[in-house]
Amino acid sequence: MKRHLLSTADLSREDALLILDTAEELAEVSGRSIKKLPTLRGRTVVNLFFEDSTRTRISFEAAAKRLSADVINFSAKGSSVSKGESLKDTALTLQAMGADAVVVRHGASGAPHRLAAWVDGSVVNAGDGTHEHPTQALLDAFTMRRRLGDLDGRRVTIVGDVLHSRVARSNVHLLHTLGAEVTLVAPPTLLPVSMGDWPCEVSYDFDAVLPKSDAVMMLRVQHERMNASYFPSAREYSRRYGLDPERMARMPVGAIVMHPGPMNRGMEIAAEVADGERSTIVEQVTNGVTVRMAVLYLLLSGSEPAIGGNQ
Amino acid sequence: MKRHLLSTADLSREDALLILDTAEELAEVSGRSIKKLPTLRGRTVVNLFFEDSTRTRISFEAAAKRLSADVINFSAKGSSVSKGESLKDTALTLQAMGADAVVVRHGASGAPHRLAAWVDGSVVNAGDGTHEHPTQALLDAFTMRRRLGDLDGRRVTIVGDVLHSRVARSNVHLLHTLGAEVTLVAPPTLLPVSMGDWPCEVSYDFDAVLPKSDAVMMLRVQHERMNASYFPSAREYSRRYGLDPERMARMPVGAIVMHPGPMNRGMEIAAEVADGERSTIVEQVTNGVTVRMAVLYLLLSGSEPAIGGNQ
Amino acid sequence: MKRHLLSTADLSREDALLILDTAEELAEVSGRSIKKLPTLRGRTVVNLFFEDSTRTRISFEAAAKRLSADVINFSAKGSSVSKGESLKDTALTLQAMGADAVVVRHGASGAPHRLAAWVDGSVVNAGDGTHEHPTQALLDAFTMRRRLGDLDGRRVTIVGDVLHSRVARSNVHLLHTLGAEVTLVAPPTLLPVSMGDWPCEVSYDFDAVLPKSDAVMMLRVQHERMNASYFPSAREYSRRYGLDPERMARMPVGAIVMHPGPMNRGMEIAAEVADGERSTIVEQVTNGVTVRMAVLYLLLSGSEPAIGGNQ
Repeated sequence: MKRHLLSTADLSREDALLILDTAEELAEVSGRSIKKLPTLRGRTVVNLFFEDSTRTRISFEAAAKRLSADVINFSAKGSSVSKGESLKDTALTLQAMGADAVVVRHGASGAPHRLAAWVDGSVVNAGDGTHEHPTQALLDAFTMRRRLGDLDGRRVTIVGDVLHSRVARSNVHLLHTLGAEVTLVAPPTLLPVSMGDWPCEVSYDFDAVLPKSDAVMMLRVQHERMNASYFPSAREYSRRYGLDPERMARMPVGAIVMHPGPMNRGMEIAAEVADGERSTIVEQVTNGVTVRMAVLYLLLSGSEPAIGGNQ
Repeated sequence: MKRHLLSTADLSREDALLILDTAEELAEVSGRSIKKLPTLRGRTVVNLFFEDSTRTRISFEAAAKRLSADVINFSAKGSSVSKGESLKDTALTLQAMGADAVVVRHGASGAPHRLAAWVDGSVVNAGDGTHEHPTQALLDAFTMRRRLGDLDGRRVTIVGDVLHSRVARSNVHLLHTLGAEVTLVAPPTLLPVSMGDWPCEVSYDFDAVLPKSDAVMMLRVQHERMNASYFPSAREYSRRYGLDPERMARMPVGAIVMHPGPMNRGMEIAAEVADGERSTIVEQVTNGVTVRMAVLYLLLSGSEPAIGGNQ
Repeated sequence: MKRHLLSTADLSREDALLILDTAEELAEVSGRSIKKLPTLRGRTVVNLFFEDSTRTRISFEAAAKRLSADVINFSAKGSSVSKGESLKDTALTLQAMGADAVVVRHGASGAPHRLAAWVDGSVVNAGDGTHEHPTQALLDAFTMRRRLGDLDGRRVTIVGDVLHSRVARSNVHLLHTLGAEVTLVAPPTLLPVSMGDWPCEVSYDFDAVLPKSDAVMMLRVQHERMNASYFPSAREYSRRYGLDPERMARMPVGAIVMHPGPMNRGMEIAAEVADGERSTIVEQVTNGVTVRMAVLYLLLSGSEPAIGGNQ
């Protein structure tokens, strides 16, 4: 496996399956109530968050701690970064302090790639701008596999603000790599202008796509975007692109409903749907920790620790 | 013992004594310089704080770490909570991530009760609105027991803004359960309108109550409330309800002075009193860690770990 | 060694060498890929930061965790400190909670000294006002020793806003103690009015000093000070006191360039200089963790743990 996890677009089928299979093994170990693995003892994982994302930060923190790694949280707010330090100098600093892995969330697409060029340790992209959020896609794929079996030929529908969604982009690439067929459903104004390299279909008719979906993934509506000119009215959006029980009834038996969270209940997803049996939303969170354990394990366990590496 | 610690009002005498006795054993172990116990190794304690309270958060963090638990701090500010996520979804998320215990501080009375209905793990109320702060009452009782012996028949006077004090409410219930007699001293405007279910006496004459007090607990004056119409002037408050050396002289030999901290020296308590021999204020902080260790130990050590529980 | 590390001005030559030699041993252990030492297991280090300083906080956190100590981060913002709690009460609280060491960053010169008078544990000054930042000076000395050998007779030039620099002050005292000769270069308005007790030379001519420098330490320009009346224009400052490749060419062969970070590339230091072979800037960060490990080790490993000490 490569040294970093930056995107799903450049993740090979072999590496993707390796992560999912490793997560499966870790889930099995956890199921036997083995509480903590000593695998990454002495390793340091830095959570470098330029944007607030408590859920993702906590998930990585829990994953690293269950592998016995030390975790250091670095919120860029109020740090020397806000005093004008460059990303490069921040990277060199973390590396010099002995970070074996840097988990980075950044508002600018591509920031993790640049970071990876400067450090010897591993970089994990925890969401960069509107670009990618690869561990989210991996946990989604892991969740689908557990519910639906092998993803080859499975039909996945992703619904909502695709334009601004790194979750959608990462999922499209990973699901394609794993053999699934993806359909995006969104208002035309919430789709990228050019989708040439996206290996998926596009539809504007949610109801028509539903009966052919093995999994329906609802994207979060960002409140801050709802007043933008390109955004439909909330009522219109919910009516055409929200998933309520009536609409869910069009899905095949056994099809599942996913959401990366946090949800706007009543907006893109009805509360009854979110809490229903077909919903995998809570499982996705649990699986998030497991998949991130697998990623950290695969990136770090084979390598030499960073400590002292510069001396 | 129950699975949660939500209030002292519903804490049985048996459970209260179990916590205090366990804390006593833990204090003895600490006294023998045993630095860290492996009891909760592999367990995850989440500090979920919707209000800032560094002292309480640190006390729980220290307690959990001395029992070898992993601690994850979740400050709700700037989290998905501030993006409108419901308390229920936050609870389900933490549970799905494998939190064995959630220590919650919330501005709304009753929030920990609601949380407890949604999670499989243990919930510890670290202060909810004007309702309860049970570990504060337990550490106060623990401190009194160490200084005064058995609390049966002991007379405890609680002085100050009872109306807004979860500390007062938790203490009244716990002390009553433990057999002590509690008297509240406060300006009429700082007492609840209906005190039907409070098992205690009320007095407006601090000086008259002092000679009959084995312990006097001074409540913190909240600066933000001092300009409210129901609040006496600072000078008037301090004169009638502040504890200075002259007033302290009315207390019986052996009686103690308590304060939950942080203090307003010179307002509700004079510096000489706070730093005097009868003051237990520093002991209360030390005992806070010990009592919280006991609570976490009792809630978590017998149960199965949460990790993998959802899988 | 003393119980606290508050300044380099009162650090004996013996203690300074003990810290540097201990750091050397720890660096050697790290070099053998020993990832974590059990030395401080069960000890609690509190990072008490009244000012934001993510770099310094992370460096201490990494150091403490590599020695297996528990770390509790206490940012004074939003804490009871901001509710008006006195530094003394904060100190007593941390002590009562069992802090074996308090690492303190404070905006007021002398705050760590006062703290040290109130607690039984060890206090490490992580920067106080314009006074001292002793671990920065120790890591600088450690870096120089590794590059230049014994510091006796070595000539060190410190350039920039000396007036507001705790880094400069700590370095001047420590380097003098270690036998080096220090020259300060700064605009007259950025030097203290009275330098009677500073054991060093002063020069206003950077170019004249360069050929006689074994190490040149560039101080950070604080953006917030650049518009002050006593500050030269940015252009003028950079021209006269900035280190660019042309100027660096005046330095002797083997001389090194240092900077405490974070840098303003293009202002006090050119990017080519910062990234060049003579630059020790990244090593300084790595050495920072090592030196802080040495300090925590020496302060804590011989003593009894604080836990239970108050009981």
